[in-house]
Amino acid sequence: MATEILLEAREDGELPGRFARSAAATSGVSLRTADVPEWFAQRRRAHEFRVRRIPFAQLDRWDFDQETGNLRHRTGRFFTIEGLAVSAADDPTPIWQQPIIVQPEIGILGILAKEFNGILHFLMQAKMEPGNTNLLQLSPTVQATHSNYTGVHDGAPVRYLDYFTQLDRHRVLADVLQSEHGSWFFQKSNRNMIVETDDDVPLDDDFRWLTLGQIGELFRRDNVVNMDARTVLACAPTVHDEAGALDSDTGLLSWLTTERSRQRIRAALVPLDGLDGWTRSDTELDHHREHYFRVVAVAVEAGNREVTAWTQPLIEPDGPGVHAFLCRSFGGVPHLLVNARAEGGLLDAVELGPTVQCQPAYHVDPLTGQRSPFLDAVLRAEPERILYAARHCEEGGRFLRAESRYMVVEADEHEAPTEPPAGYRWVTPGQLASLARYSRYVNVQARTLLAVINTGAVRF
Amino acid sequence: MATEILLEAREDGELPGRFARSAAATSGVSLRTADVPEWFAQRRRAHEFRVRRIPFAQLDRWDFDQETGNLRHRTGRFFTIEGLAVSAADDPTPIWQQPIIVQPEIGILGILAKEFNGILHFLMQAKMEPGNTNLLQLSPTVQATHSNYTGVHDGAPVRYLDYFTQLDRHRVLADVLQSEHGSWFFQKSNRNMIVETDDDVPLDDDFRWLTLGQIGELFRRDNVVNMDARTVLACAPTVHDEAGALDSDTGLLSWLTTERSRQRIRAALVPLDGLDGWTRSDTELDHHREHYFRVVAVAVEAGNREVTAWTQPLIEPDGPGVHAFLCRSFGGVPHLLVNARAEGGLLDAVELGPTVQCQPAYHVDPLTGQRSPFLDAVLRAEPERILYAARHCEEGGRFLRAESRYMVVEADEHEAPTEPPAGYRWVTPGQLASLARYSRYVNVQARTLLAVINTGAVRF
Repeated sequence: MATEILLEAREDGELPGRFARSAAATSGVSLRTADVPEWFAQRRRAHEFRVRRIPFAQLDRWDFDQETGNLRHRTGRFFTIEGLAVSAADDPTPIWQQPIIVQPEIGILGILAKEFNGILHFLMQAKMEPGNTNLLQLSPTVQATHSNYTGVHDGAPVRYLDYFTQLDRHRVLADVLQSEHGSWFFQKSNRNMIVETDDDVPLDDDFRWLTLGQIGELFRRDNVVNMDARTVLACAPTVHDEAGALDSDTGLLSWLTTERSRQRIRAALVPLDGLDGWTRSDTELDHHREHYFRVVAVAVEAGNREVTAWTQPLIEPDGPGVHAFLCRSFGGVPHLLVNARAEGGLLDAVELGPTVQCQPAYHVDPLTGQRSPFLDAVLRAEPERILYAARHCEEGGRFLRAESRYMVVEADEHEAPTEPPAGYRWVTPGQLASLARYSRYVNVQARTLLAVINTGAVRF
Repeated sequence: MATEILLEAREDGELPGRFARSAAATSGVSLRTADVPEWFAQRRRAHEFRVRRIPFAQLDRWDFDQETGNLRHRTGRFFTIEGLAVSAADDPTPIWQQPIIVQPEIGILGILAKEFNGILHFLMQAKMEPGNTNLLQLSPTVQATHSNYTGVHDGAPVRYLDYFTQLDRHRVLADVLQSEHGSWFFQKSNRNMIVETDDDVPLDDDFRWLTLGQIGELFRRDNVVNMDARTVLACAPTVHDEAGALDSDTGLLSWLTTERSRQRIRAALVPLDGLDGWTRSDTELDHHREHYFRVVAVAVEAGNREVTAWTQPLIEPDGPGVHAFLCRSFGGVPHLLVNARAEGGLLDAVELGPTVQCQPAYHVDPLTGQRSPFLDAVLRAEPERILYAARHCEEGGRFLRAESRYMVVEADEHEAPTEPPAGYRWVTPGQLASLARYSRYVNVQARTLLAVINTGAVRF
């Protein structure tokens, strides 16, 4: 061959340092962090946006299927709400039934990155979603369902989408399929991308360049950074300077393999009609005894979204969640207590979640029938032990005010022993970040907390 | 805390060197490689073992379900044969229907390792399986379905099983869930384990300690190393000394994410009765036009298996397969041409397969309707370009004489361009080995070829 082949290094050794410098930078070129509230206020004024609950009968082109009762759009697009029956692998008797969102397409959650003055900045969007508290939150550059970018919405083209579909022109820093909420989505995956460009990028009013450190500061406020931004930032190629870990990486992977072999559940879609314990009124589909969540309908009137007005179903949890890592230092290295958590909607059944992941109003996990053994240690933590606490919403396009308190809480041997109970394991932030490069290892709640760490919003 | 915490290094830097030394060792402490045929012959004589085709009606406690036609054991254990309908994500019309094995349990495929004279040896078993060519092949230390070790077979306890279930007493070198054949198994996973012990291990007549290099020599012979041993050895923690790669690891992962987003298929279980094009006679379930494979029944009489006699269904492919990597050197580093391959039975739909994976008698892939663009380059390769070629059987407990020719073939720019077509990518052996530490990245056919490389049976 006459052409000379240039090989690449398998790992870009400079990339983690570039992310670390961006996390250390609390001011950027585009907007002061202190001015974000005013920018949000401007964008709110620029776009009319109202959300109101409606009866199911007022949904436009959404119907309950005559035969199955499944809630679906007449075009067959967007998503459906169907039933899920979860059972143990050895016993087909369902131990749990519930409605679940079915949306087999793979969406793109993408953040565009660019260096200004030697510091990586990230193009963040002030985006409204009907389910978000405050409606408008800090979102990725692109947040597109397959329907979005194939034009099912009949809306405007997705801005900056080409950066995430024409990858040979730019530099991919992260790109991985990750699961969404395993208790509300059936086997849903999204593509989590960070793409760097050298282009001169025209700046729309809804978009601003922020450093990782600025985003970290915003992480400390309630209901500012949306779920899609959080999961993408969890996949950032950060490296943590750690002298070692309680388990080697092989030991950690082996433990997860053991848990995946041990916690054997089967989940199957069933008709939404006739789910055990669930009843439908004109305005909601709810469990008549355990009010974990309900299915409702809303009408949305907006200016900056794909269409000017639409109606859609949403899932509304009954009360806020608490998702928390207990952390301890071993040999001078911080460790997080992860839980190998089975959820009916996860493709691979078990992923690593935070120490505590629950709605405290319902102390009992529907799958295991057990109360989290660490919930009290989180809820009763003295203020000086709380390294991080802020409320964040889950995906505002599917969930209505699904707020959770995300926390990182210091623990001691009494609260969280060095040898934790079955299903729990101590891992370092660096180990969790390494696993997040691969699909289906770190669940969406743990990814929010990993993003908190990656952006420097918590320091150990 | 009074107790002192000792941290582990995240990666054991000495392990790859220990595997490399074992791969370089072509003689071991337990058996000369040249004496393996005589050992096999002894074990064959020690165990009566015959397999004969029988009509479905002679299956013991296996029935076709009245309602669905699914073939199942009366106890509900072991596995079932059901129908699979595969469709594109956007269009529910099935593009392909076929029978498929459903076995949701996670089995253990485990190889015990131990150092003798400073060299890692692996405890390999001479094990008979009804579907294997020659019946007896070199197998992992433990090859246990969940039914095996929970006693459903009413058979003898699985020898050496404790080494793979009481992990805190030994040293885990590899432990990862991997997919099985995506065209014949529905979402089947097995646990691939290599565990090192310092124990004095009593040696049963059916077992011998072999170095990786000895196993590599056996890999060059037809039908000696069974599929279960091959997939476990693919997960060995080997490191390849490579100066770089055409793509960085992030670039490779991003390409696979693109392919997983692009090749969107849906697969659903359906009743075995009424599969389009499939008809059942007294002795086989076959496609009346395309003879890819058929479902048959066999009776087994054996001495060294879990029970002394049993009957079971098997899947019998119609003619041998060809699974081959084209390879080229770029910048002095060997690269393999992988194919991001969608298969209906894979949990994550798309995994990395070899360049060519097909039954040449049926040139057309049922999913894509296309002929492999690289099949001719493999079939017509001059002998000096064939770096490796041997016939191996797929899993002999489920597949009847499912032989394939596994090959590694040198190619040039004309046969395999530096910029390959969509769906193909050049990766280094080191990149493939790194991915095999994680679940659902490298498919079972590519893992056989990776084991060939890991054991030194092919050198570039």
